[in-house]
Amino acid sequence: MAAVTHHPFLSSKLLQTTKPNPIRIGPTAVRMSLQETAPSLAVVGVTGAVGQEFLSVLSDRDFPFRSIKMLASKRSSGKRLTFQGCDYTVEELTADSFDGVDIALFSAGGSISKEFGPVAVERGTIVVDNSSAFRMEEKVPLVIPEVNPEAMDGIKLGTGKGALIANPNCSTIICLMAATPLHQRAKVQRMVVSTYQAASGAGAAAMEELELQTREVLEGKSPTCKIFKQQYAFNLFSHNAPVLSNGYNEEEMKLVKETRKIWNDKNVKVTATCIRVPVMRAHAESINLQFENPLDEDTARNILKNAPGVVVIDDRASNLFPTPLEVSNKDDVAVGRIRCDVSQEGNHGLEIFVCGDQIRKGAALNAVQIAEMLL
Amino acid sequence: MAAVTHHPFLSSKLLQTTKPNPIRIGPTAVRMSLQETAPSLAVVGVTGAVGQEFLSVLSDRDFPFRSIKMLASKRSSGKRLTFQGCDYTVEELTADSFDGVDIALFSAGGSISKEFGPVAVERGTIVVDNSSAFRMEEKVPLVIPEVNPEAMDGIKLGTGKGALIANPNCSTIICLMAATPLHQRAKVQRMVVSTYQAASGAGAAAMEELELQTREVLEGKSPTCKIFKQQYAFNLFSHNAPVLSNGYNEEEMKLVKETRKIWNDKNVKVTATCIRVPVMRAHAESINLQFENPLDEDTARNILKNAPGVVVIDDRASNLFPTPLEVSNKDDVAVGRIRCDVSQEGNHGLEIFVCGDQIRKGAALNAVQIAEMLL
Repeated sequence: MAAVTHHPFLSSKLLQTTKPNPIRIGPTAVRMSLQETAPSLAVVGVTGAVGQEFLSVLSDRDFPFRSIKMLASKRSSGKRLTFQGCDYTVEELTADSFDGVDIALFSAGGSISKEFGPVAVERGTIVVDNSSAFRMEEKVPLVIPEVNPEAMDGIKLGTGKGALIANPNCSTIICLMAATPLHQRAKVQRMVVSTYQAASGAGAAAMEELELQTREVLEGKSPTCKIFKQQYAFNLFSHNAPVLSNGYNEEEMKLVKETRKIWNDKNVKVTATCIRVPVMRAHAESINLQFENPLDEDTARNILKNAPGVVVIDDRASNLFPTPLEVSNKDDVAVGRIRCDVSQEGNHGLEIFVCGDQIRKGAALNAVQIAEMLL
Repeated sequence: MAAVTHHPFLSSKLLQTTKPNPIRIGPTAVRMSLQETAPSLAVVGVTGAVGQEFLSVLSDRDFPFRSIKMLASKRSSGKRLTFQGCDYTVEELTADSFDGVDIALFSAGGSISKEFGPVAVERGTIVVDNSSAFRMEEKVPLVIPEVNPEAMDGIKLGTGKGALIANPNCSTIICLMAATPLHQRAKVQRMVVSTYQAASGAGAAAMEELELQTREVLEGKSPTCKIFKQQYAFNLFSHNAPVLSNGYNEEEMKLVKETRKIWNDKNVKVTATCIRVPVMRAHAESINLQFENPLDEDTARNILKNAPGVVVIDDRASNLFPTPLEVSNKDDVAVGRIRCDVSQEGNHGLEIFVCGDQIRKGAALNAVQIAEMLL
């Protein structure tokens, strides 16, 4: 188990693994107990919030491996961390890092993926990339294992052939985990999404900034704005992704485009408004669905109750529905507020409210699940 | 000026007016400088967040009055406060409180309004009621002065005839301030709203609870949950209003029904998801609009720039759009993220993002503006 202590909302605890550790047993530790047939792994961007969560999820799921490389930028190289009782030193990512690596989990930003993803593939590594770098490339599968596992057909371990597989954007994963089972039944024609996105989506430093700013504001001080250019504590703002010429920001257009690709449906209409709220690590989404075929709310609720990776929290009497805090550090995406849309007729519309851990199912868990499908 | 010091996000400063003041000049102070023709006022629920804001707005707008009564529950009676340099003692609200009162601004909850609103009307008082008690009664005008001033036709001061006028719900006011000018041009057919609602909507005690909880969580303590039954700090949850049999909560159905009444359009389709976010005093709303007639985004932006009580903040290059913090303590509702909806064709849809001070335009300012129309 990675020595990551997850506090449900505070970030400063998140990177305790990177504390120097006096014992150093070499750059790539080998787990003695594992069969030689297990794949060799690499984690790229291991000191980041998602990188840390990769380790946590690999451990939680007993992912088999014969070796694991901890890779990061030069700045982080030399840092030491403990994983499953072994001590590792973070290595600097270079082209040679991928020699002999079967599966690499990337989460170090789009430019690192663009530079090193193809290099790894050339050396025979299957790359599961959490960045947006390759998501919309036609030949790169964009995969949520519960939704479109078939997109990975043909990619196999042990052939010596590398490949790129893209992990969708966190908001897309969380949205489609809930919307897909309903889409499969009644066919979504149009989807209107408004997000409530946590600090974690902008990385560990953003979580730290939210915490720091909150302390400052409570002390009557001016908030420190380094990651975001405006006050985040007790405030919210339009997602910080660049705004495109059509007025949508990149985060919103990811939801629009990735949904079409994952559902393999060029005609599905999606619109989104992405907002950053002062929550630490789980996203929420208000989703309005318009269906081609009628779907009543009881049927929808039952479909969702039986959907893999989904939990329904929909207690109207007690007013208990999904919250970001409740899903933090959890694998399942929670769905609630399931109700027939009063603005649509004939059971052709539903409103739902969804929460999912941005770092876990929104990133690391989904990537590790993709890797599991290769085993 | 009321001695209310508004901190933009923290509540503990909000009720400084109720600090005991050594000078007491009687229950109903008379402003010497005002003409005898100005109306006599009463503020019901004066110690609450909205009640305090009534005083602030009356003062900011130089609302003329010959006398003003500070009314609240028995629990608060005897408290002293300073308003425009005069000291007042809060009086217990009784049936006799309204003798000689021309205009009463009510914000003490629905049950107080139900009990004392008709009593006041009987005594010849024109009641502007901030609660939901009478909003949907057919004969009670539901008014946003910039939107449907004509609904108040026939209600006049000085006739000795009392009347009820309802102040819409805060989410409705903020939504319709932005949506109405667009509706007037292109006719809204359907509106999908997701809210990001501040603590202030649940009163001063909720703002205090958010502040307290945040301090507790930062100190690693369990959060105190008195007003809300779950953690609010660094979290969000479905609005705490009771959930109805159709799965919508009361807050959401207010948006649906009040929009129809204010626009005098029984056919307009509205759906809403109302979420409480850890922000102090201003609401945000993501609004998706479907129009009968085409409306391009430049025209929409110009319409909004010229709309009374609306300010457009829509700087795509700098990624600067409305935030709750920016509109806190401001009169205008801010609109941004104005863009043609990519999920609709032929300029028949728009996405907008709106922020408005819940206590001010969402409650006290709107009520005082209604009262101004009586002058």
